[in-house]
Amino acid sequence: MAGRGELTRAAVERFIDSLERRDWESWEGLLDPDVVYELPQSRERIRGRERYLQFNQEFPGDWHLELKVAIADERNGVAWFWWRVGAEEPGDAMAFFRFGDDGLITAVTDFWPEPYEPPSGREHLVERW
Amino acid sequence: MAGRGELTRAAVERFIDSLERRDWESWEGLLDPDVVYELPQSRERIRGRERYLQFNQEFPGDWHLELKVAIADERNGVAWFWWRVGAEEPGDAMAFFRFGDDGLITAVTDFWPEPYEPPSGREHLVERW
Repeated sequence: MAGRGELTRAAVERFIDSLERRDWESWEGLLDPDVVYELPQSRERIRGRERYLQFNQEFPGDWHLELKVAIADERNGVAWFWWRVGAEEPGDAMAFFRFGDDGLITAVTDFWPEPYEPPSGREHLVERW
Repeated sequence: MAGRGELTRAAVERFIDSLERRDWESWEGLLDPDVVYELPQSRERIRGRERYLQFNQEFPGDWHLELKVAIADERNGVAWFWWRVGAEEPGDAMAFFRFGDDGLITAVTDFWPEPYEPPSGREHLVERW
């Protein structure tokens, strides 16, 4: 029998994969009806599975997601993934998950870090790529 | 006996905690001598424990870290933490870890997402905080 951590890890994988495939039924099936989605960078919050579904269905552009790393335990999970729009350069993003007792996702918090120029003063330690 | 995932999770916790305490000996003890540290946002890379230690010791400002969530399995781990400089507003950051066979950290990749204004067109779904 699969341990609970393996089940939540599989849910993290399916979350990204079903979004990429626009398989809304599969994606929705992972979520608690009262899931709370937060974007701390813009201080935005969406309450409930239906609105969160609509948010993703309405999200503009030819967006694509590809999972890089999934880690999960009984209560928490994370997806580190690449995202890109059309033929643009891919960027890193990460989504953190909370799981309820029934294994459904009760909270999602994601982050979309932007490129920046390195501060000066550490050139003696660092290489660039 | 603790499972390997519990040991790596404890290492993730100690990573943040020892940095916060400037306990360099404890922090250094978590790292493989050939650890590779990467900052994808600035495309910077530091090779080796000694340089990485120096980078942290030389990092300017009265910086503080507080762990929010640690998740780890046999090979991968993540720390989602708050950081702040002096009395500034705290920000979210996250560090991903790879573990070698001996449990030492062989790779660290961290992200420092900045605040941004939400794009228009989703006000009907979103609340702000």
